[in-house]
Amino acid sequence: MTTHTAPPTTKEQLLFLDRAAVRACLADIDPVAAVEDVLGAHRAGRTALPAEGYLPWSNSQGAYCRSLAMLGSVGAAADPLAPVAYGMKLINAATSNPAQGRDRAGGVSFLFDPETARPVVLAEAAYLSAQRTAAYTMSSLRHLGPRQFEEVTLIGCGAQARTHAESLARCFPAVHTLHVHDLLPERATAFTAWVEHRGLPFTVTRHHRAAEAAAASTVVITLTITDTGYLTPDDLRPGTFVAHVSLDDLLPEVFDRAQALYVDDIELIQENPRRVLGRLLNEGRVLPPGTTKPGVTTVRGSLGDVLAGAVPAERPGDGIVVSNPFGMAVLDVGLLARVHAHATAEGIGTRLDLLGAER
Amino acid sequence: MTTHTAPPTTKEQLLFLDRAAVRACLADIDPVAAVEDVLGAHRAGRTALPAEGYLPWSNSQGAYCRSLAMLGSVGAAADPLAPVAYGMKLINAATSNPAQGRDRAGGVSFLFDPETARPVVLAEAAYLSAQRTAAYTMSSLRHLGPRQFEEVTLIGCGAQARTHAESLARCFPAVHTLHVHDLLPERATAFTAWVEHRGLPFTVTRHHRAAEAAAASTVVITLTITDTGYLTPDDLRPGTFVAHVSLDDLLPEVFDRAQALYVDDIELIQENPRRVLGRLLNEGRVLPPGTTKPGVTTVRGSLGDVLAGAVPAERPGDGIVVSNPFGMAVLDVGLLARVHAHATAEGIGTRLDLLGAER
Repeated sequence: MTTHTAPPTTKEQLLFLDRAAVRACLADIDPVAAVEDVLGAHRAGRTALPAEGYLPWSNSQGAYCRSLAMLGSVGAAADPLAPVAYGMKLINAATSNPAQGRDRAGGVSFLFDPETARPVVLAEAAYLSAQRTAAYTMSSLRHLGPRQFEEVTLIGCGAQARTHAESLARCFPAVHTLHVHDLLPERATAFTAWVEHRGLPFTVTRHHRAAEAAAASTVVITLTITDTGYLTPDDLRPGTFVAHVSLDDLLPEVFDRAQALYVDDIELIQENPRRVLGRLLNEGRVLPPGTTKPGVTTVRGSLGDVLAGAVPAERPGDGIVVSNPFGMAVLDVGLLARVHAHATAEGIGTRLDLLGAER
Repeated sequence: MTTHTAPPTTKEQLLFLDRAAVRACLADIDPVAAVEDVLGAHRAGRTALPAEGYLPWSNSQGAYCRSLAMLGSVGAAADPLAPVAYGMKLINAATSNPAQGRDRAGGVSFLFDPETARPVVLAEAAYLSAQRTAAYTMSSLRHLGPRQFEEVTLIGCGAQARTHAESLARCFPAVHTLHVHDLLPERATAFTAWVEHRGLPFTVTRHHRAAEAAAASTVVITLTITDTGYLTPDDLRPGTFVAHVSLDDLLPEVFDRAQALYVDDIELIQENPRRVLGRLLNEGRVLPPGTTKPGVTTVRGSLGDVLAGAVPAERPGDGIVVSNPFGMAVLDVGLLARVHAHATAEGIGTRLDLLGAER
């Protein structure tokens, strides 16, 4: 009945992929293609994204801490030959981490055996997550960005800026200049040093003000941790594409005046009114796909719709095109499935035995 | 401001405890005391139990599979000296596993650093979970069971039966006989062999019918995977204590006629009407604590209430006393915190570096 039936066993093995292993695998696969495949499956209803587990607390310094446990599956299809992946991303954060020299967020991602449901892969999550975020940005830029661009603006110079810089070097070889801004000038400096150290082919120009950085190119990628908008329509050049990755950088007026607006999943955004676009949708100041009202911006659709050809890809003309991806754990699960396949083929990773001497 | 501030570091370490390591630690700590501490914290409102993440699917044999991601914290107290533990239990299952020689459920549990939120402990979850379940049963038996008993009935002879047998040997040395039943006779046989192999001080008597096993002693512990009740009041001797661990073994009439009924958390049970007591509470056939109606059974309170002296502990007289614990992931988190403290003190476990050569 099944091609996956394991022989009776009392072994319980988990393949552990640390960040270096994940990085080694990702260097040999195409994360943009992996993300686009999952977006297609999501659009076709072949993903599951259950409500996430959420545990918030305050640490002894009073800083906000949280754990997010996000289950997801890709490809649970009518087609029995379609690849399936079940997994979870556990990603925790404390706002006090960066001041102590640590990335704000960190955690682990899992894949589960589709037949036994056992966890079979354990991987460092933050790098993988940043890679899928950057891969989504690259896909959106490829399909919805300016036809030609040689300069890109990154607002926020943390871990996400680093993976975005790596991805830009890989996907858009014409880009030669990065305009950057960070509220902490030393973080912008450290980013500049890192670009040189990695040998990435970019001249990095630091800007003291975010608006100045935004106005310096026609591709603006927000990678901050802000919860307060700061970019006005006048800060952006006509013909700009904004990848609004950090979700709270654009002021409502940018959405009002957007030439076109795309999302990853309209429901996820509507369900989260803490973020600006969710709030505007709940207020009726921005409309979901399929509804119109004179003078009001309507979300065109999802990037998955664009990839499927179901919604036209509108690149920036004289106006601003905004991509506003909420972020979906199924992208991590789908990308990890590709990483796992590569790791298995190449013998990358360490096998942990969950039972130890018990077996 | 804090006693926990770590020095700036880019290391990301996780202490891995396989089942053998967890077992070694548990041999040196008192899981019943650990569980009773958490029950006290829970009663005092010093725990958090967010909604669990739940991903169900069918495998290629059509068997039900699921992943449960249960976050929880213990001791988030006004008292800054109170120990705190934040964590998660990821426990997955496939109903087709036992037929392939695998325990139905398996997974991993985590502890998070209270200051940085980073996962710091990764432990095999199924053994720990079975131990906390057995520890809860031992506590309920100590406080609500018959004053004296030398024979115990275990219905269901899987992994839970093994940990219950170990716990009984440790906590109730007067017990000399186990009456057991399993729908699969070979599982009862395997359990009997295991008891001998482990050198546990029990005579094991196998019964062909569950009702026969239930009538054979005054302490009945249900450890099955049934979703259909089968035990009637007449199957149980007057003066019996039932630990209704598997939650769907008792028929409604047992609750109707119970001398006393205790739970772990009334809300968890009410919110889950798929289980018999949840259904009876939702129907008004059993009443929550604090309400009464002639001829209708009222839940006395929680085991935590009993431990705190807030609710009388009523042991079986001529009737039946039922303990119906839904199961709380905070107990796993609290128990894992004790295991972690012991592992650290004794140098048990393996350190995994999440970053690998990246650091």
